[in-house]
Amino acid sequence: MSQEPVLVAGEWRNSDFTGTFQAENPATKEALEAVYPISSWADCDAALDAAAEAFEILRETSGDKIAEFLEAFATNIEARAEALVEMARLETALPVSPRLADVELPRTTGQLRQAAAAARSGNWKQPVIDSANNIRSCYSAIGPVCVFGPNNFPFAFNSAAGGDFAAAIAAGNPVIAKANSSHPGTTKLLAEAAFDASQSTGMPTGTIQLIYRTNHDIGGQMVTDSRVGATGYTGSRGAGLALKKAADGAGKPIYLELSSVNPVVILPGLLEAKCDALAEEFAGSCLMGVGQFCTNPGLVVLIKGNSTERFIQDVTERFEGAAVGTLLSGAVEKSLHKSHKILKAAGVEVCCGTGEGSGNGYCVANTLFRISGEAYLRDPETMQTEAFGNSSLIVVAKDLDEAAAILGTMEGNLTGSIYSNDSDADEAAYRKLAPILRQKVGRLLNDKMPTGVAVSPAMNHGGPYPATGHPGFTAVGIPGSLIRFAMLQSFDNVRPSRLPNILQDDYSGSAQRLIDGVWS
Amino acid sequence: MSQEPVLVAGEWRNSDFTGTFQAENPATKEALEAVYPISSWADCDAALDAAAEAFEILRETSGDKIAEFLEAFATNIEARAEALVEMARLETALPVSPRLADVELPRTTGQLRQAAAAARSGNWKQPVIDSANNIRSCYSAIGPVCVFGPNNFPFAFNSAAGGDFAAAIAAGNPVIAKANSSHPGTTKLLAEAAFDASQSTGMPTGTIQLIYRTNHDIGGQMVTDSRVGATGYTGSRGAGLALKKAADGAGKPIYLELSSVNPVVILPGLLEAKCDALAEEFAGSCLMGVGQFCTNPGLVVLIKGNSTERFIQDVTERFEGAAVGTLLSGAVEKSLHKSHKILKAAGVEVCCGTGEGSGNGYCVANTLFRISGEAYLRDPETMQTEAFGNSSLIVVAKDLDEAAAILGTMEGNLTGSIYSNDSDADEAAYRKLAPILRQKVGRLLNDKMPTGVAVSPAMNHGGPYPATGHPGFTAVGIPGSLIRFAMLQSFDNVRPSRLPNILQDDYSGSAQRLIDGVWS
Repeated sequence: MSQEPVLVAGEWRNSDFTGTFQAENPATKEALEAVYPISSWADCDAALDAAAEAFEILRETSGDKIAEFLEAFATNIEARAEALVEMARLETALPVSPRLADVELPRTTGQLRQAAAAARSGNWKQPVIDSANNIRSCYSAIGPVCVFGPNNFPFAFNSAAGGDFAAAIAAGNPVIAKANSSHPGTTKLLAEAAFDASQSTGMPTGTIQLIYRTNHDIGGQMVTDSRVGATGYTGSRGAGLALKKAADGAGKPIYLELSSVNPVVILPGLLEAKCDALAEEFAGSCLMGVGQFCTNPGLVVLIKGNSTERFIQDVTERFEGAAVGTLLSGAVEKSLHKSHKILKAAGVEVCCGTGEGSGNGYCVANTLFRISGEAYLRDPETMQTEAFGNSSLIVVAKDLDEAAAILGTMEGNLTGSIYSNDSDADEAAYRKLAPILRQKVGRLLNDKMPTGVAVSPAMNHGGPYPATGHPGFTAVGIPGSLIRFAMLQSFDNVRPSRLPNILQDDYSGSAQRLIDGVWS
Repeated sequence: MSQEPVLVAGEWRNSDFTGTFQAENPATKEALEAVYPISSWADCDAALDAAAEAFEILRETSGDKIAEFLEAFATNIEARAEALVEMARLETALPVSPRLADVELPRTTGQLRQAAAAARSGNWKQPVIDSANNIRSCYSAIGPVCVFGPNNFPFAFNSAAGGDFAAAIAAGNPVIAKANSSHPGTTKLLAEAAFDASQSTGMPTGTIQLIYRTNHDIGGQMVTDSRVGATGYTGSRGAGLALKKAADGAGKPIYLELSSVNPVVILPGLLEAKCDALAEEFAGSCLMGVGQFCTNPGLVVLIKGNSTERFIQDVTERFEGAAVGTLLSGAVEKSLHKSHKILKAAGVEVCCGTGEGSGNGYCVANTLFRISGEAYLRDPETMQTEAFGNSSLIVVAKDLDEAAAILGTMEGNLTGSIYSNDSDADEAAYRKLAPILRQKVGRLLNDKMPTGVAVSPAMNHGGPYPATGHPGFTAVGIPGSLIRFAMLQSFDNVRPSRLPNILQDDYSGSAQRLIDGVWS
């Protein structure tokens, strides 16, 4: 059987491989036809050389030219939408509509165009000029970026087209994309669209490269390599922490999105007033996309009151009545069962689910757990086990103090939500709980479920460890996400003609610059 | 003998100690009278509790109030300048003038006042408002900060008064200062001035705390503790990397300044035209402060030409003729001898020095080494051994290509300098070498020695690993340095009255805000 080629140094070429793999259709559990190579170090080494070479050119390339590439890529994606959506459907079992064709694909091209606009304006570089000392500084490209994409967004977080890709390229870095093994075909189509756009807009050949898979050791070798500037990773905590350890040891920046249970607190006043509507809203958010969002509400904190049992009962019925979706892969199914086993062993009570799902292919019954605050506090670490998929845990605190204690034990998360009404009691509870939750999450929400991550400059899709590796950076939101793939560069007494254009006195671009303390 | 007290939870109290130590006068090698405790975990644990408690208040405290504290502290330092300078002179042997009294102390109070201005304006928070999505974001305090200060700046980088302290406090975090063991008395005086100012301006009692020393394990435990937000460290590479490993493993941000040889390239055209002046400039920069600056020029790259030997000869004579200064401590003397031994074993040729110094107390003869580019390239890693002190290595490349290869092997550094004249040859050489050097340093200089770090918003006192732990942050320059001690916080649909003041619609402060894509 012939193997799919890797994209290295501007060529779709045969891999120097150590093994092969195939993707599966999660809805049928059948292997898809195409065979993909597991790359040896030789592939990676060649890609790193080509990336280093491309970087020499790319970092001197104007933002306008980089923007042209990103826009041409977005256009290519639109022109090839049908094939992309069909391949992604086969590889992920995500619905075509409303999801792949009309939500995720437009989001992906939108991100690429926002990144293009950021590259064009140059604002992300934050240029600062100190005339008296003749020192100038700005952020600049950091060097070749390795991107490891997750399984759950075949387009929007794809290593060859998603948020990390767009941010890394817009900041002036070549990208080596490592496909997610569950959707290599989609990634290949995107890399083709990217490469074609890079050629038609005159980018250096090594601007975008693609390998499908390596063993773990080689992944670790990649992220520590001296030719690499930084790494973006979205995926499981285990694999991510192994890469983090390697990169940290070599002093190479790595930005990870690892795991998050996204606590949602519903205060008693609102729960009493709107119990049914809240049950509907929560069940909808939790089961959407079969619960396979990074911001899925995996942990709900209630304070015992008149409506607590009614809410749990209502959600249970909705979970039981809702169709069971197909999970992204056998690995997700296996991992979800494993998490359920851990939680049950730790003492959670099953409201519904945990068994085999009634849907197509890989699936697990919609699952709701509950536990008392007291029991939760006996082993908070285990209780925060992420159950990635259509599953959630409701913690019933006996009072506000216990709820505060529960939030006090939370690990870092991407999001935290608090629902409340206008009563004095809810407001007082909010004032007590919000400061605790605030320091533990990247994004604090009011009266809103965390699923749904707007591509907004005010977005923080990040948060304290172990949600990510550093609480100062966001993976979504432009221009903020570009800064991850940049280094701070100061120019001291550098002659005018040798300065980057954006720091020159006669700069005529549109970027806002801080000149002698004044923005202009 | 009675022991000096630690400052924990607003009290100067007896340490729970595991041992004691005394500082030395480096000029006489005699122990100073005061005895300081080596703190047990109990001291640290109590300080962490108090810091966590202080943080609850401090992070809700206005920038204006924090600014008042920083300014009162600066005033206290000025009022106590005489005692501070005398203590620092005893503990470091640095000259009173021109250094401690008229350079470093004013720099320190200047930094505190700049940090106060930053706290007042709030610009560092980079507030962003997206009205359509009702999402808002800004940087906010990260939590209690541990500061480990270096030996070489008893005031300006002191853990209880220097750049990291000022940045951490201005961003709204309490500080636990770990004194540098070579100047505990100076640190105590500064912590007293800080604490008194914190009391007179109504800061929470745990805002500033002081311990003098711990063993390494306890240091590692500190930086990983769940109560800690982040750590700032300036010092030796070995101790810094141990702390980095611990902090990285716990996902706690740590900002380190570790080591740097600060390469200086002098191109042949300029060397020929200005050989004597360059020798004088280089010798002055290299021997200033007995070479004990983070940005000391420890490695010079020349391209073989008519003036190469004359320059080396001239510098050698200047090194031999210059007075030998006293080093900061016996440890610095020992470490300098050790570095010299490593370099000599690797084959460098001694132009002068390496022996006992003719100065007072701890000292080593002014030392100049040389080596050919070819020999350098056989073991570039060893050749970049930092020899902290009055010592430098000149590498003579046979041509431009070899000089490029040498720069290509450089580790990350704080600074890199290129001297050139207006000739076509120098300009062409610059165009070849500068892009290589640019990616490896935080600050690129033209025609200027790297010593001298202006406290400028355009300064980058940082650089790629192993100069620091992350190339995106600066330790000097306000407001940039504050961002290290902040986390990004997004507010999604949060009710108006619950937003931080700086994100509210009726905000009346002076911070620049990005509102719906427009700065205002």
